[in-house]
Amino acid sequence: MYDQNNVFAKILRGEIPSFKVYEDATALSFMDAMPQSDGHTLVIPKVESRNLFDIAPAALADLIKATQHVAKGVQQAFKPDGMRIIQFNEPAAGQTVFHIHFHILPCYTGKEIRGHNRDWADKGLLAQQAEKIRAALANLPPRQ
Amino acid sequence: MYDQNNVFAKILRGEIPSFKVYEDATALSFMDAMPQSDGHTLVIPKVESRNLFDIAPAALADLIKATQHVAKGVQQAFKPDGMRIIQFNEPAAGQTVFHIHFHILPCYTGKEIRGHNRDWADKGLLAQQAEKIRAALANLPPRQ
Repeated sequence: MYDQNNVFAKILRGEIPSFKVYEDATALSFMDAMPQSDGHTLVIPKVESRNLFDIAPAALADLIKATQHVAKGVQQAFKPDGMRIIQFNEPAAGQTVFHIHFHILPCYTGKEIRGHNRDWADKGLLAQQAEKIRAALANLPPRQ
Repeated sequence: MYDQNNVFAKILRGEIPSFKVYEDATALSFMDAMPQSDGHTLVIPKVESRNLFDIAPAALADLIKATQHVAKGVQQAFKPDGMRIIQFNEPAAGQTVFHIHFHILPCYTGKEIRGHNRDWADKGLLAQQAEKIRAALANLPPRQ
């Protein structure tokens, strides 16, 4: 069941702020406010969907294409050594906001990934990082 | 760069065995041989692709739809409390086989996820689990 008062629904409605890196007709991407590594970014669809099990296949397909596009920007901007794409379903798996989202989690050799949903990042830093990713995306071809 | 001798390329060519749970024209799914939880399943595309950065958007979109379909079967078969969908890019992120794949990782309340790429599972158990997922998938509508 979809709760229209989840945090990402509020971000989509502009009721609470976020550090946006990308937006188009069907997807929105912004910095994770409790990043597990530098450049940790989220991508969400504009459709109302709780998780992998209730999203329409076509909407999911569109979401992963948006995620790939943003991931290319994050890769350019942060030059991590690796990257994880992660999607949690239900609290037992670590889901804390019940609007489906993909995590783009840059990995850096020798640097541990921080715990999920633990510490709020400095807002000035998130603003800088978002700008860096937006600049990288501006140099990429539009997504398919 | 894509190495045609990676383990999943060999599985696709039938050169080494796997416990298959699903196959269609563009995707293959089989049990992870070193499962991190009961029902840990992998989904790969038939196209040659190393990771998120070299796969064509349309092929990636198809892959996530196949992953969603198999995940529904895993959910039916194992009734986990949650599920993680994970995709690793490059060794720094945990990628060990360089053919793009999504992990379907069931999560059970109170049970820790085991380490990645650690212990080989009993083959009889994997065969049973694959059969359980295939049976669940047989009761689902075909994927889109």
